Amino acid sequence: MRTSVLTVPIQKVGGAQPMDHDVVAVEEPIQIRINDTDVAITMRTPGHDVELAAGFLFTEGILHSLDDVVEVAQTETSVTIAVRADASLDLDSLARSSYLSSSCGVCGKASIDVLAAAGCVSPPADRPRISWDLVVRLPDLLRQRQRVFEFTGGLHGAALFRPDGELELVREDVGRHNAVDKLVGRAFLDRRLPLSNFVLLLSGRVSFELVQKAVMAGVPFIAAVGAPSSLAVQTALRFGITLAGFVRNGSFNIYSGEGRIEKSAGTP
Amino acid sequence: MRTSVLTVPIQKVGGAQPMDHDVVAVEEPIQIRINDTDVAITMRTPGHDVELAAGFLFTEGILHSLDDVVEVAQTETSVTIAVRADASLDLDSLARSSYLSSSCGVCGKASIDVLAAAGCVSPPADRPRISWDLVVRLPDLLRQRQRVFEFTGGLHGAALFRPDGELELVREDVGRHNAVDKLVGRAFLDRRLPLSNFVLLLSGRVSFELVQKAVMAGVPFIAAVGAPSSLAVQTALRFGITLAGFVRNGSFNIYSGEGRIEKSAGTP
Repeated sequence: MRTSVLTVPIQKVGGAQPMDHDVVAVEEPIQIRINDTDVAITMRTPGHDVELAAGFLFTEGILHSLDDVVEVAQTETSVTIAVRADASLDLDSLARSSYLSSSCGVCGKASIDVLAAAGCVSPPADRPRISWDLVVRLPDLLRQRQRVFEFTGGLHGAALFRPDGELELVREDVGRHNAVDKLVGRAFLDRRLPLSNFVLLLSGRVSFELVQKAVMAGVPFIAAVGAPSSLAVQTALRFGITLAGFVRNGSFNIYSGEGRIEKSAGTP
Repeated sequence: MRTSVLTVPIQKVGGAQPMDHDVVAVEEPIQIRINDTDVAITMRTPGHDVELAAGFLFTEGILHSLDDVVEVAQTETSVTIAVRADASLDLDSLARSSYLSSSCGVCGKASIDVLAAAGCVSPPADRPRISWDLVVRLPDLLRQRQRVFEFTGGLHGAALFRPDGELELVREDVGRHNAVDKLVGRAFLDRRLPLSNFVLLLSGRVSFELVQKAVMAGVPFIAAVGAPSSLAVQTALRFGITLAGFVRNGSFNIYSGEGRIEKSAGTP
């Protein structure tokens, strides 16, 4: 089992505390295979590798059902998913997925249209309902569980919360897309997709890719500590996903899907 | 000309200042082509697209010399670089580059070895010499010029500094690798590679990919506001690159290449 952090010697210059070592987040490549086909190599933080592979293959539109999976094998540097000969694999997506995070299309609209073509639909516009004061508390709730980030400052966190604020699952990775793939992969392996009753919290910024993965997994509500990109906002609007950004210091911005946010009596 | 920021309507919840709009960083895909071959689609912030394409193709080891370039054509969503029929293109790298940022190899050591195999060598260990008090001032020097980041909080910045602290070039992008590609691409187009007398400052964290691009471009010194990953540290050590992380609040950590950092009389 590889570890997710590594201690390295350093020289500290300035600062009150002398230090001769630092703990850094591990970044190592992993190979993802279906049967004998190399699908992707991606950098990731070791740990939950099967979840990562399953989540990646699902959110990229390549693998559709756990029923197609016959066997899963892993080494320290690879995950191989064996699928049935008659599996409904979208092999065309293999070529597209070689772009990895970039999705397809040569303009933002095309990128969004690909999701619609993949059968993604908008979740119900008014549920789950999340109170605004829960939204502002989500980053603190995550931080209490995101131990490795505390140590290294080098990992992105992603978490699934229930509408009542209960933390369901946390994953961390040097790649923010990997943290989300690990969450979605766990749900895929547990046959819990779509995640239509969960809030996805992201510790950083929101790119198109992260909204894409949420749409594929049926997540109706994204809250993020950082800023969204233009295409992230446009994609959230297109699929009616709630997108709350800059969730920090007791306030946030609603970019899309305000109908799921419940403003209680105390809302400023 | 596409813009790099977009104003979107929002609802602000909480906070002292009422707001009904926010400015977000634009994220749009771009297609990079050599002659008739599609090399990559990547998400980026529009602007300096030719630099991005040139820097990407150079740092991925596909394009080696400006002498091979016959013509450059761009649209709003693509850059096509026409090369001579007898160009010394590394077409094998095309397949590898489909992994985009992931580089090749199935373990970290292999990823590093690929750089050595590409002919990358260590720069002289003792130059340029940078004073520690300049290192701590670099983020402020960048921030003064990084206007879009100030507005959106959603862009990564990368900058080249001379050893005397003069700011040579700044680029911003939603993708941190793109910001570096734009810097390197500018230098490629100006025949200024290798960048052996410059410090590369990064506004965020340091992944393997960013050190890889620095090695390809001959940059001997990387300073970053954020944390490095394990493979970033290992790659910097392997190629003798100076890597300073957590450059903030008057202090920083030296992970590699201390010989280029000059500790003046006032060094704590």
